[in-house]
Amino acid sequence: MVSEKLTQRKENFAKWYEEVVKKAKLCDYSNIHGIYVIMPYGYEIWENISKNFDLLLKKDGIKNAYFPIFVTESQLKKEADHFQGFVPEVAWLEKKSGEEKIALRPTSEAIIYDFFSKWIESYRDLPFRVNQWCNIVRWEIKMTHPFIRSREFLWQEGHTAHATAEEAREEALKALNRYKKFVEEHLALEVIAGRKPESEKFPGADTTYTLELIMPDGKALQLATSHFLSQNFSKAFDIKFKTKQGSYEFVYQSCWGITTRLIGAIVGIHGDDKGLVLPPRIAPIQVVIIPTKIEEKLLSYAKEVKNKLDGKVRVEFDKDQVHSFGWKLNHYDLLGIPIKIEIGEKELNEKELTVVKRNDLTKLKIKLSQIEEIPKLLEKIQAEMLEKAKKYLESKITTAKTYEELEKNLKEGKMCKISWCESEECEKELSKKFSLRVVSDEKPFSEKCICGKEAKSVLYITNSAY
Amino acid sequence: MVSEKLTQRKENFAKWYEEVVKKAKLCDYSNIHGIYVIMPYGYEIWENISKNFDLLLKKDGIKNAYFPIFVTESQLKKEADHFQGFVPEVAWLEKKSGEEKIALRPTSEAIIYDFFSKWIESYRDLPFRVNQWCNIVRWEIKMTHPFIRSREFLWQEGHTAHATAEEAREEALKALNRYKKFVEEHLALEVIAGRKPESEKFPGADTTYTLELIMPDGKALQLATSHFLSQNFSKAFDIKFKTKQGSYEFVYQSCWGITTRLIGAIVGIHGDDKGLVLPPRIAPIQVVIIPTKIEEKLLSYAKEVKNKLDGKVRVEFDKDQVHSFGWKLNHYDLLGIPIKIEIGEKELNEKELTVVKRNDLTKLKIKLSQIEEIPKLLEKIQAEMLEKAKKYLESKITTAKTYEELEKNLKEGKMCKISWCESEECEKELSKKFSLRVVSDEKPFSEKCICGKEAKSVLYITNSAY
Repeated sequence: MVSEKLTQRKENFAKWYEEVVKKAKLCDYSNIHGIYVIMPYGYEIWENISKNFDLLLKKDGIKNAYFPIFVTESQLKKEADHFQGFVPEVAWLEKKSGEEKIALRPTSEAIIYDFFSKWIESYRDLPFRVNQWCNIVRWEIKMTHPFIRSREFLWQEGHTAHATAEEAREEALKALNRYKKFVEEHLALEVIAGRKPESEKFPGADTTYTLELIMPDGKALQLATSHFLSQNFSKAFDIKFKTKQGSYEFVYQSCWGITTRLIGAIVGIHGDDKGLVLPPRIAPIQVVIIPTKIEEKLLSYAKEVKNKLDGKVRVEFDKDQVHSFGWKLNHYDLLGIPIKIEIGEKELNEKELTVVKRNDLTKLKIKLSQIEEIPKLLEKIQAEMLEKAKKYLESKITTAKTYEELEKNLKEGKMCKISWCESEECEKELSKKFSLRVVSDEKPFSEKCICGKEAKSVLYITNSAY
Repeated sequence: MVSEKLTQRKENFAKWYEEVVKKAKLCDYSNIHGIYVIMPYGYEIWENISKNFDLLLKKDGIKNAYFPIFVTESQLKKEADHFQGFVPEVAWLEKKSGEEKIALRPTSEAIIYDFFSKWIESYRDLPFRVNQWCNIVRWEIKMTHPFIRSREFLWQEGHTAHATAEEAREEALKALNRYKKFVEEHLALEVIAGRKPESEKFPGADTTYTLELIMPDGKALQLATSHFLSQNFSKAFDIKFKTKQGSYEFVYQSCWGITTRLIGAIVGIHGDDKGLVLPPRIAPIQVVIIPTKIEEKLLSYAKEVKNKLDGKVRVEFDKDQVHSFGWKLNHYDLLGIPIKIEIGEKELNEKELTVVKRNDLTKLKIKLSQIEEIPKLLEKIQAEMLEKAKKYLESKITTAKTYEELEKNLKEGKMCKISWCESEECEKELSKKFSLRVVSDEKPFSEKCICGKEAKSVLYITNSAY
């Protein structure tokens, strides 16, 4: 493990971020620009995220499938806005003579909806809901960052078809809420939920719903999106169903996804100058036991402690002889392990444990006889982390009633909300300089928009976004 | 669900196979040749396979990671044999100006071993073992078949590095045995284990170990491979470690994989004229409860039965009103569900269940009070299926001492073993006409090889292979 000190987070967030993901061995850089490997420690976080989220999908009766990575040019072109939106970052295969031009999926609507048109016949087939976990390729021109933006990433994409517009929109909102609850409960992330302004919608969508947060450097980060597609794709891909009355109608659709970017959010929001701080629910190792010295009696006590915790929490026991106790403490702080248990002479003699919480670095003593406190402490840490994330988000959100206030707040690295008119001209004007993140249906805090027109909703704005 | 009858399996195995995978909704064909979608029912089988196998890997301390799908031409060329072996079926990206030529992984040695050379420094890092679950692209020129050979498929690939040749070979053999045990215990498949003759080795391997079986149509099917790579890749990719003595040496390596082809083997070996026959351990639905009529009292009894089984087995309850009881029986036979429970007036009155085993279509009565027999019955079915697969394989294996006998046996769709000299000339001669599948270290059954030279081992041969 690399030993040099981390860059201070406040000093240079971007540099701190890249150092942490590298030193904690979450990922490594490949020889191709914007392409990363997710290393075992990072992948285990993704496994904990995907397994837990997959349980929620299964609970809601949504089955997984696997669709091809390949899409033909003509398929991709069927929905014109969709094609226009994605074509700049599509990676194409070298064309084989006699075969149509083939791309790698930048998202799978064009692939999956060709199958929907074959599979969906009658109202009895509706609602039709399917999900896949797969890799996605977008040949990014923008700056890339590990987990946050890369030319290949892993994700989950859900696709549904319904008999009515209401049902499809409901499904899109249900998906958004499922994401919101999941990132709160499992990743301890507080987010802003709402819809995207028109200019920021998913290419081909009627409405795009989004979860957003703001990173410590003031850049916004989109965490999850869910789209109500109306009949835009069903008309392009000819997805019709026979109604009870015997007529044929186009289905209404929704689609939604989360990606390995979630790991980037966990790093960015929870981390500190010592490294990662992982929410217990998705931490690959929840508790690490570290003897102060590698001595038989301490090792045997540590083993006893481990045995008592095995099967209840994800626990490891460090008996490595190469590194010092001090080095180990720093190392496990870098890895963000929620609880460190230190075992020395004193702990052995008093049959107790010195427990250090990674989230606030506080130390406490627990009697060995009360070791069942450890799983509860993990839940406490999880709750404290969400609480801290809430306070953090609150501290980052400002309001503005004038253009000058808005500019000032954004310059200070804040997210700023305005009462908004939702007009096209106003959106066009604002988007020239700022990043328009979320339209929220919360009550406007002033009657007028920043542009003077009547306010309808609230718009969250940042200076820029990842 | 399509209702037309299946082609008889004996009449035309290939046609039967394609009908079954399509009608049972395991997969569907895309608009690109050799590219399939794995539909929810098929994917659930893959989930049951991969989840169970992943537990075995984790138990053995092997962690997962995710490596990029992309490999540059120069990376792929580093190991010359490897490149030569894979280049005919590599899919390349359209070259971007100023960037190197990039391919999609046909396998990941060239990608992963570049990282190994960065990550492995000292003997303390060894053995180094990592696995990934991912998609693979091979632009096949050969005939494609759903699950068995496709241009994109899913797999698991394990890669390891060791200090000595013995350890690396041991790891390759351990992986082979892990596969053998897994396919026996979970997929109820009996296989032949051994090594590949020289001409059939993995490009770049020192030794390729394999699990093989023979499909009912006489074509061999390779089910899993494990390779001892010696230092072939470590020299090409410069993977060195510092020994305890302080010198630097190249690591010895192994790699091994199984793919979605396993589903093809399950379909081919266990299926019958009524459709799929799924081994209980990987069946998405293990038990289906079918009332003879949709009547309140029968539904309520069926519900009671389901409640008793829930959480113990994967059980579904068919209360659909559209299809007839007879149609449903055929439908669930097509889907290969291990146990059907039929619920009629008689069963209700006697508080019993009529149980039909899919594997041998036998019917038995079980008292509701003895419902705990159902999970046991699933295990019995699993065991019976393996027993049947063993007998099937035995019935397919013949022996030959002369070239004429060999030809005759192969023409009859059998696998044929010969006592073998292992000489290059003999291998070259045999491979002109036949498919040389497995070299087994079992004792030769005659002193001389078919060519007249002294026999060293036993070679399993088929007429052709998938």
